[in-house]
Amino acid sequence: MPKTIETVPNISEGRRKEVLQEILSAVASEPGGARVLDLSSDADHNRSVLTLAGEPEQVRRSVLRLFEIVLSRIDLRSHAGEHPRMGAVDVVPFIPVSGATMDECVQLAREVGDEVARRFSLPIYLYEEAATSEHRRNLADVRKGQFEGLGKKMQEARWKPDFGPTEPHPSAGATAIGAREFLIAFNVNLGTPKLEIAEKIARAIRHSGGGLRYCKAMGVALKERGLAQVSINMTNFRKTPLHRVVEMIRSEASRHGVEVVGSEIVGLVPNDALLAAADFYLRLESFDPTQVLENRLSNPGE
Amino acid sequence: MPKTIETVPNISEGRRKEVLQEILSAVASEPGGARVLDLSSDADHNRSVLTLAGEPEQVRRSVLRLFEIVLSRIDLRSHAGEHPRMGAVDVVPFIPVSGATMDECVQLAREVGDEVARRFSLPIYLYEEAATSEHRRNLADVRKGQFEGLGKKMQEARWKPDFGPTEPHPSAGATAIGAREFLIAFNVNLGTPKLEIAEKIARAIRHSGGGLRYCKAMGVALKERGLAQVSINMTNFRKTPLHRVVEMIRSEASRHGVEVVGSEIVGLVPNDALLAAADFYLRLESFDPTQVLENRLSNPGE
Repeated sequence: MPKTIETVPNISEGRRKEVLQEILSAVASEPGGARVLDLSSDADHNRSVLTLAGEPEQVRRSVLRLFEIVLSRIDLRSHAGEHPRMGAVDVVPFIPVSGATMDECVQLAREVGDEVARRFSLPIYLYEEAATSEHRRNLADVRKGQFEGLGKKMQEARWKPDFGPTEPHPSAGATAIGAREFLIAFNVNLGTPKLEIAEKIARAIRHSGGGLRYCKAMGVALKERGLAQVSINMTNFRKTPLHRVVEMIRSEASRHGVEVVGSEIVGLVPNDALLAAADFYLRLESFDPTQVLENRLSNPGE
Repeated sequence: MPKTIETVPNISEGRRKEVLQEILSAVASEPGGARVLDLSSDADHNRSVLTLAGEPEQVRRSVLRLFEIVLSRIDLRSHAGEHPRMGAVDVVPFIPVSGATMDECVQLAREVGDEVARRFSLPIYLYEEAATSEHRRNLADVRKGQFEGLGKKMQEARWKPDFGPTEPHPSAGATAIGAREFLIAFNVNLGTPKLEIAEKIARAIRHSGGGLRYCKAMGVALKERGLAQVSINMTNFRKTPLHRVVEMIRSEASRHGVEVVGSEIVGLVPNDALLAAADFYLRLESFDPTQVLENRLSNPGE
């Protein structure tokens, strides 16, 4: 299996279409770079999210090119938007998809952080799995004070950047670079129009309500279909897998006399997350991913 | 997604290790060829099965190289073994794995059959999905009479080869080339030592007993584990999927007060077969394979 890492850099521009097009073209045409899978922009937030994936070295190249082009086109001194931000390139998470480990993503975050800091004199904070201390793990804490408060924040010892100068880049602020698990957006539809049932189930299954460790959930009314939905963000599908969420919802729903009528994956999902569900439901004994024919083909070492 | 086709050529040699090694090396080192995934030999049958996979053109190249080396090393006039055979290269099935259709495999069988017949003056019969008439669909019928009876059989109009001369190759006989679905070997273990329950269930689910169209099954006693097993060959996982077999076994077993305690896939399985199980059990609505991140990466046209 080749090592596949995903990255979803968030940049502080969601309005100027020609600038976004220029950034997209530069990143997509970088020689030896990663594959660009998506660009989503939000004008209210004045923010865009790029989705890239490939082998670690491809991802590294594309991200460096992204910093280069963004720093020449985006100036935070004239930026306003609803979404909190502290950098022109605001956040860069690296995510293991297949064949790559979290440790490799942490390593990549450090290498890219170091290189970006040196090349562009940009302060870098490592966050989540790449964080160098507990208080820097949560992105919201790292970004608190935003671009405008960065100069003051950096003077505190506990907020000295991990790489780069101890004052903000004049136009690009600072960037949080980190490593985290793939986030799966997953919705489960219930055979009832009653929103309160979806809300009760969401509270039962989510971490904050005493439920599953890597599960966020809320109830949503699908008015056109006359159904209530449990809308879920799964922040670690390896430790809190899809089937466990579905089975817990099924069990809670049955207590209200309601059935699970369907589910949907929003956006992308790693193959591994679906294979784990097949493994569970088929009750496979000692299943080995190298039994999947396609995995055998893509492994150059075999 | 790249087009991936598998082929499992059966050759009439299972004893002479040095000859097998020579054949394996030649095929594995063919420039622009397919990936060799496996070579299994049986001395009693005096027969070996190679497993190769790759894009159609890669598979074509490797199979042509295989004929070249086998025809120079194996002489059926001095061959004996328990398994029926009519050719030095006895059977070559092409199998769609992912991104490729059965029609493309039928087309490949015809092209390779035509080219092999011309290059090596070897008679070729097309069988299964590639068969040119119903009576040639079943491999056992095509091979009936074996190498020794070929000369006489070919004189009958209904057994005139599809390509090549109407008399056998002196040392290599004739070859059956065809197209068929991937065969999954799948076992389901029951929470009982009673073989008769596994046998009853096998009869209920298999095609010959009135069960599922693309399912062969028999009961087996796993004496060491003290379990009975339903041992299954699935000849078309797209039309008779894994989950339907498991659910039918679960239902039949519960009638005997027995549970399904586990299952196992023997050898390789296409990724699609497992994704279909995840889709079913998670009750996904409108799931699209392009939502699988890895599929997006391997599609050059996107």
